[in-house]
Amino acid sequence: MTIHVFSSEKIRAKIAIIMGSQSDWDTMKPAADILSELKIAYDAEIISAHRTPDNLFKFAEQAETRGFSVIIAGAGGAAHLPGMIAAKTLLPVLGVPVASTSLNGIDSLYSIVQMPRGIPVGTLAIGKAGAANAALLSAQILGLQDPTLAYRLTEWRKQQTQEVLNHRDPREKK
Amino acid sequence: MTIHVFSSEKIRAKIAIIMGSQSDWDTMKPAADILSELKIAYDAEIISAHRTPDNLFKFAEQAETRGFSVIIAGAGGAAHLPGMIAAKTLLPVLGVPVASTSLNGIDSLYSIVQMPRGIPVGTLAIGKAGAANAALLSAQILGLQDPTLAYRLTEWRKQQTQEVLNHRDPREKK
Amino acid sequence: MTIHVFSSEKIRAKIAIIMGSQSDWDTMKPAADILSELKIAYDAEIISAHRTPDNLFKFAEQAETRGFSVIIAGAGGAAHLPGMIAAKTLLPVLGVPVASTSLNGIDSLYSIVQMPRGIPVGTLAIGKAGAANAALLSAQILGLQDPTLAYRLTEWRKQQTQEVLNHRDPREKK
Amino acid sequence: MTIHVFSSEKIRAKIAIIMGSQSDWDTMKPAADILSELKIAYDAEIISAHRTPDNLFKFAEQAETRGFSVIIAGAGGAAHLPGMIAAKTLLPVLGVPVASTSLNGIDSLYSIVQMPRGIPVGTLAIGKAGAANAALLSAQILGLQDPTLAYRLTEWRKQQTQEVLNHRDPREKK
Amino acid sequence: MTIHVFSSEKIRAKIAIIMGSQSDWDTMKPAADILSELKIAYDAEIISAHRTPDNLFKFAEQAETRGFSVIIAGAGGAAHLPGMIAAKTLLPVLGVPVASTSLNGIDSLYSIVQMPRGIPVGTLAIGKAGAANAALLSAQILGLQDPTLAYRLTEWRKQQTQEVLNHRDPREKK
Amino acid sequence: MTIHVFSSEKIRAKIAIIMGSQSDWDTMKPAADILSELKIAYDAEIISAHRTPDNLFKFAEQAETRGFSVIIAGAGGAAHLPGMIAAKTLLPVLGVPVASTSLNGIDSLYSIVQMPRGIPVGTLAIGKAGAANAALLSAQILGLQDPTLAYRLTEWRKQQTQEVLNHRDPREKK
Amino acid sequence: MTIHVFSSEKIRAKIAIIMGSQSDWDTMKPAADILSELKIAYDAEIISAHRTPDNLFKFAEQAETRGFSVIIAGAGGAAHLPGMIAAKTLLPVLGVPVASTSLNGIDSLYSIVQMPRGIPVGTLAIGKAGAANAALLSAQILGLQDPTLAYRLTEWRKQQTQEVLNHRDPREKK
Amino acid sequence: MTIHVFSSEKIRAKIAIIMGSQSDWDTMKPAADILSELKIAYDAEIISAHRTPDNLFKFAEQAETRGFSVIIAGAGGAAHLPGMIAAKTLLPVLGVPVASTSLNGIDSLYSIVQMPRGIPVGTLAIGKAGAANAALLSAQILGLQDPTLAYRLTEWRKQQTQEVLNHRDPREKK
Repeated sequence: MTIHVFSSEKIRAKIAIIMGSQSDWDTMKPAADILSELKIAYDAEIISAHRTPDNLFKFAEQAETRGFSVIIAGAGGAAHLPGMIAAKTLLPVLGVPVASTSLNGIDSLYSIVQMPRGIPVGTLAIGKAGAANAALLSAQILGLQDPTLAYRLTEWRKQQTQEVLNHRDPREKK
Repeated sequence: MTIHVFSSEKIRAKIAIIMGSQSDWDTMKPAADILSELKIAYDAEIISAHRTPDNLFKFAEQAETRGFSVIIAGAGGAAHLPGMIAAKTLLPVLGVPVASTSLNGIDSLYSIVQMPRGIPVGTLAIGKAGAANAALLSAQILGLQDPTLAYRLTEWRKQQTQEVLNHRDPREKK
Repeated sequence: MTIHVFSSEKIRAKIAIIMGSQSDWDTMKPAADILSELKIAYDAEIISAHRTPDNLFKFAEQAETRGFSVIIAGAGGAAHLPGMIAAKTLLPVLGVPVASTSLNGIDSLYSIVQMPRGIPVGTLAIGKAGAANAALLSAQILGLQDPTLAYRLTEWRKQQTQEVLNHRDPREKK
Repeated sequence: MTIHVFSSEKIRAKIAIIMGSQSDWDTMKPAADILSELKIAYDAEIISAHRTPDNLFKFAEQAETRGFSVIIAGAGGAAHLPGMIAAKTLLPVLGVPVASTSLNGIDSLYSIVQMPRGIPVGTLAIGKAGAANAALLSAQILGLQDPTLAYRLTEWRKQQTQEVLNHRDPREKK
Repeated sequence: MTIHVFSSEKIRAKIAIIMGSQSDWDTMKPAADILSELKIAYDAEIISAHRTPDNLFKFAEQAETRGFSVIIAGAGGAAHLPGMIAAKTLLPVLGVPVASTSLNGIDSLYSIVQMPRGIPVGTLAIGKAGAANAALLSAQILGLQDPTLAYRLTEWRKQQTQEVLNHRDPREKK
Repeated sequence: MTIHVFSSEKIRAKIAIIMGSQSDWDTMKPAADILSELKIAYDAEIISAHRTPDNLFKFAEQAETRGFSVIIAGAGGAAHLPGMIAAKTLLPVLGVPVASTSLNGIDSLYSIVQMPRGIPVGTLAIGKAGAANAALLSAQILGLQDPTLAYRLTEWRKQQTQEVLNHRDPREKK
Repeated sequence: MTIHVFSSEKIRAKIAIIMGSQSDWDTMKPAADILSELKIAYDAEIISAHRTPDNLFKFAEQAETRGFSVIIAGAGGAAHLPGMIAAKTLLPVLGVPVASTSLNGIDSLYSIVQMPRGIPVGTLAIGKAGAANAALLSAQILGLQDPTLAYRLTEWRKQQTQEVLNHRDPREKK
Repeated sequence: MTIHVFSSEKIRAKIAIIMGSQSDWDTMKPAADILSELKIAYDAEIISAHRTPDNLFKFAEQAETRGFSVIIAGAGGAAHLPGMIAAKTLLPVLGVPVASTSLNGIDSLYSIVQMPRGIPVGTLAIGKAGAANAALLSAQILGLQDPTLAYRLTEWRKQQTQEVLNHRDPREKK
C-alpha cells in the first residue's frame, strides 16, 4: 500500500479508510472521493477483523506513528472492524455500516454503534451516504487545527447549499 | 448558562453537552462525568430542537466563537437536535440516542444516525454508555492537538484495562 | 418559485408541498396530482433541513403570510424536514416518510411520527400512498371551511368507491 | 354521552376523542387536557371497531351533523378504529397509536399509519405525547378559521418555549 | 359476482376469498387454486375495508345466509379487511397478510394478527404460502363435517409427502 | 390427563389446549376460561416439541380418535409445537404465540405464523388475548355444525358488545 | 441417497447436510463445497419437518448409527427442521437460516436460534455465508479428534488470510 | 485464574466460559451449572474484546495448549468477543447473546450470529437459555469422543423428558 496524494504535493496521509473486504469498496469509495475533493491525503486498505486479525492489530498499533489522525472503518454483518480498531488505538474511529445481504445493514449498524462504555466508535449512516459523511466528519475534525482545510470545508458546504437553492422547483428538470 | 470548570483553574469550555429536555440529563450525565475525570471543561445546556428552534440556531451559530471544539447532543424519539445542530455548524457533532418510552431508543438511533450525505453526525450507542463514549471520543478528538490530554486519556484507558485484568474470575465477588 | 395554478383561474396557493431533495419528487408527485384533481392551488419546493436550514426557517416563517393553510412535507432517512417546519409554524404540517435505501422508510417513519409533546406532525403512510393521502387530508382540512371543495371531495370519494364496486371479481381483467 | 364543556359557557363540542377501550383513556387523557387548556369543547367516547362495529359506523355517519370538525381516535394492537372512522367520514381523522402489551405500540403504529391511498389518517406519536399532539394539531386545524383560538395557541406555544428557555442548565433542579 | 364452480356439478360456494384490491389477486390466487384442487366451491370478490366499508358490512351480514362456511380475507398495509369482517360475523375468518411495498408485509401481519380479545382472525403466513394455507385450513375445517372432503385432503397431503420423499437428493435435478 | 368437563354433564372433550411448558399456562388459561364460559369440553396438556417429541407425535396421531375437533397450541421462542402438531394431523390447529423473555413474542409469532405452503397453522395474537381468541375461533368452527353452540356464541358476542355500549364515557368510573 | 465421496477413497459420510426443500440447495451448496475442499465425506438430503415429519424422526433416530458426527440443517420461514432434529438426537446440530421471501430470513433466524433450554442448535448466519460456516464449524468439531483434518483446516484458514493480505488495496483490481 | 473442578478429581478444564464483563455472569452461570451437572471441567474468565483486546488475543492463542476443546463466549451489545476469539483459534466457538439494556439482545444476537464466510460462531439463544444450551452443545461435541460423557448426557436428556411427562396437566400445581 502506497501513500496516495490528491495533488502534486507530497504529503503524508492523514486519514485511513479501511474496510473488511473488496466488496465494501463500492460503499466506501464516496469517502475517498470527498477526501480528494477536500484535498486531504488518505490511504485505503482492506483489513479483515476476522480473516486477518493480526494485521488489524498491527495496523491499529502503527496508525498513530504512520501519521493518521482519523480512521474510517467500513464493515458489514457482524461488523467488528471499527470496534476492534477502536479498542487498539486512541485515534478517533468513525464507523460506516455496509448494507448486508439479508438484513440491509441493520446488523452492521447495531454491531458498530452499540459499543460498550469505554471504547467509542462515531457511527455514520448505513451505506454510501455514511461513507461520504465519515469523510466530512474527518475533515471537520482535522479542520479544528487546520484553518485552510476549515476554509475549504466551508466553501464545500456553501456550494452544497447553493446547489439546493439553485434548483428549488422539483417539477423543473435540472 | 455559565461556563463550568471542573477544577479551580478558569478555563474556557471546550465541549458543549446539549440535550432536548431535562429528562435527558440522567442519560447525558455520564458524558459530563467522563469530561470531568479527564479535566476537560464543558458546558451543559437544554436546547430543544422543537420547542426552542431559534435558540438552537443561535447556539449553533455562536458555538465556534464561544470556543467549543466539539458538540455532544443527546435526544430521544424524533431526535432532531444533533442533526439540526450539525446542519448549522462545522464543528464535529456527536449524537447520543436517548432511550424513548415506547421504542427503546430505536427511533432515536435511526433519527440521529441516518443523516443524508453532506451533514454528518457521529453517533454513539443508545443511552448512558453512548453518552460516556461521546465524551471519550470528544477527548480523543481534542487529544489530537493536546498532548497532555492525550496522556490523560492513555492513562484513563490503561486503568480501564487494568480493572478488567484485576478481576478476571466472574465467580469471585469484587 | 412561482405560484402554480392548476387551471386558468389565478388563485393563491393554499398548500405547500415541500421535500428534502429532487429525488423525493417521484414519491411526492401523487400529492400534487391529487391536489390538481381537486382543483386546489399548491406550490412545490425543495427545501433541505440539513443543507438549507436557513431557507427552511425562512420558509416556515413566511408560510402563513404567503397564504398557505397546510404544509405537506416529505423526507427520507433522518427525516427532519416535517418536524422542523412544524417547530416554526402553527399551520398544520403533514409528514410523508419517503422510503430510504437501506431501511425501506422505517427510519423516515420514526423520524417523522415520533415527535415530542408540543410539536405535532400528522404523519401519513410511507411512500406514494402517503403522499396522495397527505393531499386528501389537506383537502379535508380545507373543506371544513370551503363547501365547494367539500363537495368535490365527496364526489372524488364516491367515484373511488364506485370504481371498486364496478370491478369486484378479481379474476376478470379490468 | 353528553356534551362536555370546559367552562361555564355552553358550546358545542368541536372535537371528538374516541378510543377502543377504557384502558386507552390513560393514554388519551392528555388530548383532553390540552383541549381544555385551549378552551376547545370536546366529547370523549369509547367506540370499539371490533366489539361495536355498528356503533362505529353510526358515530362516523353522524359526526359531521353533530358538529365535530376533527376526530381524534386512539387504538392499540390491530388498531382499526382510526382507519375505519376515516373510511366513513370526510372529517379529518387523527390517529394515536396506543402502546400495546407485547409489541410496545409498533403494531398499533403500523396499523394506523399504513393506510392505503384514498383514506388518510394523520398519525401522531405512540402514547401520551401523541395524544397531546393530536389535540394540538386539531387546534391548529380549527385555528385556521378561528383567530381567537389561533391566538390562544400562539400563546400556548410561546409559553412552552419560555419554559425551556427559563431552565436551560440541566444540572440545576427546577 | 357469480358463483364459481370448479367442476361440472352446480354447488354452492362454501368459501369466500375476499381481498382489498385487484393487486392482491396475485397473492390470493393460490388459495383459489388449492380449493379447486380439493373440489371446494368458492367465490372471490374484491371488498375494500377503506374504500367500500358499507359493502364490507353488507357482505359480512349476508355471508352466512349466502352459505359460506369460512371467509378467507387477504389485505396489505393497514390491513383492516379481515378484522372488520370478523367483527361482523361469527363465521371463522382466516387472514392472509399481503406483502406491502415498503414494509414487506410486517405491517400487514401485525394489523391482521394482533386482534384484541373477543374478535379472532386465524392468521396465515405473509404472501402466497399463507394464501394456499388459508385454503387448506378452510378445507380442514370443512372436513370436520364432510368425510369425503377429509378423504381428498388426506390424499392431497399424502401426495405432498410423497413428492418430497421421491426427490430427496438436492443435487439431482428433478 | 383426565377429561375435564365444565359442568355436571359428562361429555367428551372437543378441544385440546396444549402448550410447551407449565410457564405457558398463565398465557393459555384465558382459552380454557372462554371454553368453559361457552360450555365446550376441553383438555389441557403440557407437550414439549423439543423435550418430548415422541409424545408430541403420539398426541397428534391420536388426536382425532380421542375426539378432538380443534387443537389450540401455545408456545414461545422457537415455537415449534403448533407447526409440528399441524404436520401430523388434519385437525385444524390454532397457534398462540407466548411472549418470550427477550423478544417479547416476536420470535414466537414468526415461528408459528410463517409456516410453509402445505401445513397451515391459524395464528392468533401474542399473549392472553390470542389465547382467548383461539378459544373463540374454535367455538366458531364447532358452531358451524352445532346450532346451540352457535347460539351461545351469538349471545356471548352480544353481551360483549353491550358491555362496551353500556360504558361509553371513559371519564366515568365503571 | 447414496454416500458421496469427494475423492477416490471410499469413506463413510461424517456430516449430514439436510434442508427443507429443493429450493434451499442454492443456499446450502456452499456447505457441501467447503466439506469437499476439506475432504470430509458428507451426505445431502431433503427432509421437510412439515411435509415429511415421520422421515425427519427416522433420519434423526438413525443418524448416529449411520455414522454421522454432525448434522447441518438449513431451513427458512418457520424453520423447524434444525430444532426438531436436535430434539431427537444427541449429535451436534448446526442450523442455517435460509433467507425467506418476505422477512429476509429474520423469521428463519429466530425460529432456529431461539431454542428453549435443553435442546441446543448452534446457529450460523443467514444465507450462504452461514452454510459455509456450518461446514467449517463441523470441520473444527471433527478436527478435535482428527489431526490430519485439523492440519487441512489450518492450511485452509492460512490461505484465506493470505488472500486478504495479498490484495490489500481496494482500488487495484484483483 | 485457576482451574476449577466440579468434584474431588483433579482434571483439566475442557471448556472455557468467557464473557465481556462481570455483569454477564448472571446470564452465563447456567452454562457453568450444566457443565457441573454433567461433570465436565471448565474455567470461567472475564475477557473484554474492547477493554482487554491483547488479553483476548493471548487467551485465544493459548486456548488449545491449555487443553480447552470448546470455547463458550457470552457478550452483549456490539458483542465482538465470540467472533474475535473465533478469528484467532480453530477450536469450536459457541456464542451466547447477552440481553442488552436498550435493544433486548437483538444487537447482541446480530453481532454474534452474522459472522462472514470463513469464521464461524455457533450461536445460541439470547440469555440464560442460550447459556445453558451452549453448555449442552459443548457436551454433545465432547461426547463424540467420550462415551461416558455421552452416556451422562443421554441420562440428562431422559430425565428432562421424564420431568415433562410427569407433569402434563398444567392446572395441577407441581
